[in-house]
Amino acid sequence: MNGSPPGVEEVGSVLIVGAGLIGTSVGLALRRVGLRPWLVDSDSTAVAVAAARGAGVAAEPGIQPELVVVAVPPGSVVEQVAAALLDYPGAVVTDVASVKGPLLSGLIEQGAQVSRYLGGHPMAGREVSGPLAGRGDLFDDRPWVICPHQTVSARAVRLLHGLIRATHAIPIVLDAAVHDRSVALVSHAPQLVSSLLAARLADASDEALAISGQGLRDMTRIAASDPGLWSQILSANSGAVAGVLSALRGDLERALVALAASDTEGLADLVARGNAGSARVPGKHGGPTAALVVVPVKIADRPGELSRLFAAVDAAGVNVEDARIEHVLGRPTGLVQITVSAAGADRLGDHLRSAGWVVRG
Amino acid sequence: MNGSPPGVEEVGSVLIVGAGLIGTSVGLALRRVGLRPWLVDSDSTAVAVAAARGAGVAAEPGIQPELVVVAVPPGSVVEQVAAALLDYPGAVVTDVASVKGPLLSGLIEQGAQVSRYLGGHPMAGREVSGPLAGRGDLFDDRPWVICPHQTVSARAVRLLHGLIRATHAIPIVLDAAVHDRSVALVSHAPQLVSSLLAARLADASDEALAISGQGLRDMTRIAASDPGLWSQILSANSGAVAGVLSALRGDLERALVALAASDTEGLADLVARGNAGSARVPGKHGGPTAALVVVPVKIADRPGELSRLFAAVDAAGVNVEDARIEHVLGRPTGLVQITVSAAGADRLGDHLRSAGWVVRG
Repeated sequence: MNGSPPGVEEVGSVLIVGAGLIGTSVGLALRRVGLRPWLVDSDSTAVAVAAARGAGVAAEPGIQPELVVVAVPPGSVVEQVAAALLDYPGAVVTDVASVKGPLLSGLIEQGAQVSRYLGGHPMAGREVSGPLAGRGDLFDDRPWVICPHQTVSARAVRLLHGLIRATHAIPIVLDAAVHDRSVALVSHAPQLVSSLLAARLADASDEALAISGQGLRDMTRIAASDPGLWSQILSANSGAVAGVLSALRGDLERALVALAASDTEGLADLVARGNAGSARVPGKHGGPTAALVVVPVKIADRPGELSRLFAAVDAAGVNVEDARIEHVLGRPTGLVQITVSAAGADRLGDHLRSAGWVVRG
Repeated sequence: MNGSPPGVEEVGSVLIVGAGLIGTSVGLALRRVGLRPWLVDSDSTAVAVAAARGAGVAAEPGIQPELVVVAVPPGSVVEQVAAALLDYPGAVVTDVASVKGPLLSGLIEQGAQVSRYLGGHPMAGREVSGPLAGRGDLFDDRPWVICPHQTVSARAVRLLHGLIRATHAIPIVLDAAVHDRSVALVSHAPQLVSSLLAARLADASDEALAISGQGLRDMTRIAASDPGLWSQILSANSGAVAGVLSALRGDLERALVALAASDTEGLADLVARGNAGSARVPGKHGGPTAALVVVPVKIADRPGELSRLFAAVDAAGVNVEDARIEHVLGRPTGLVQITVSAAGADRLGDHLRSAGWVVRG
């Protein structure tokens, strides 16, 4: 019988370079499975904070880690990975940067020993940064992309898989170029589009914002992200992001032509193409979107109501796929949008009504 | 003592033209306060269904309504409002179309008696249509914009305010041009941007979609909307929507230039401008966004868990501002993101942990 949690035996001794949000979170995640990584950062305070939180211990001269995790800002990752490959000639080196192709090219150009390098990208983050924001469960159940290359060693593959398993993430293997195009499409371009749309609101009238609804809130949520971090990510993946945005610009031109001509058919076609794309966005658990129905229920805006409501929902025996509290303009009431399977919606509505809840529709 | 609910005495007898989602919902809302409107629709089945659901009674020849509510698709609203003004020379006529300026101009061009016309726009809708989708509480607590004009009669103003109060909506008075520019900015342009972004996903690889997260889901949710309806709305408000999208195209050009030059400062400026705009989007209850913190809690994906969780949240005595169940890739667990005031977050986290819940961070 083997008592170690999955991944722990493969990982061995770990050095984390960069004690920010991601580095500290890796340290805390490894601590959960009994590992105690070394930490290093150009900011010694960050190391002290991360170590105090239990993410590891400050690295000392002469250490010989088996795995180095470089978790530094995108702008300095090539330099830091190259330095780690030189400083620790026995170690496998990985990183957590959001863009993988240019990083590998940069390392190869420098003549780095890339057989010991294997890039990764945990698809996890927070809206805050620094070692105090680190969380030991940040990677739980999240994809962690691995981007292999032709000369990578089997040992590097084994150690990175071990690290990902130890942090409770889910390894997904992608070619670096495929990864970079993919994140440009599903993350980087949407981020910039949200920023550009939100920027239009900077000078908007109060009246306009007063009549806005959930659609605008959804479309501008990620526009609140950190400019320093995102400008580095967008710059590092500029080619792929520009590819998506150029295609978007083409469609935007078509939309402007259709608007100028009040071309209803052309506009309907653009909206219909959006229907087709949105239908491909994965729903819960990463699977295809199931047939779901929203059941809206009114509640008073005070402690106790949600508890009573979900007790009633549970009593109906219907599994909740999603739930959202909607904003109500100027009144002390809320609307809870409960998403359930189409099959369960009628049962839920009937049950809630019979229990005295106000269910819309 | 006056026993009638607010607005009912002012409304008088009502004819609803168009027994679709909005017309049927107006009828059901008026029924709640004891009114019984007449219904008419070019589709007699729609009238029969709406009437069977209690939204009113089929109109008969010779009726003399005091208020006519025109709730037809955007493409036929000018024609139907003009016809109602002619057919019912004693009546005030209103409508529910999403675009108000061209409608008023169209009526004036036709020589219609616009002193008896006052346009309105209830900011409420559903993703489904037709009389079966109508809801008596669709307008509860939602803004209902009124667009007055120079020659409107005091009686028209009184009757429309009465209708809005009777449906439990909140009247907001806006100039038609201001309304049209406002909805272009906060609703029509975001709709088209979501469609254009989602259209980019139609040919995306499964790998790309597999690593997508909540950001992409938010950005593409409204892209699932009806092309027939939206092409008419966008066409009717083409000038104002084009204004917003032209400005967006300018910023998109700047983004492409910054990407081509890997101009990190320029990209940071674009993201920072998005920060400024997103900070202006109203939070709950239409007020400014308060300092809120998200407390993430893990739950098993089965009935009973949400009830237990919210009972624990209530026991902590912290008011929940928002709650969302997050998707977890490939695992039978969920993450509930509970948004509370910054002041209450620590108390909530401590309380939940002491009650045995897994709170991240």
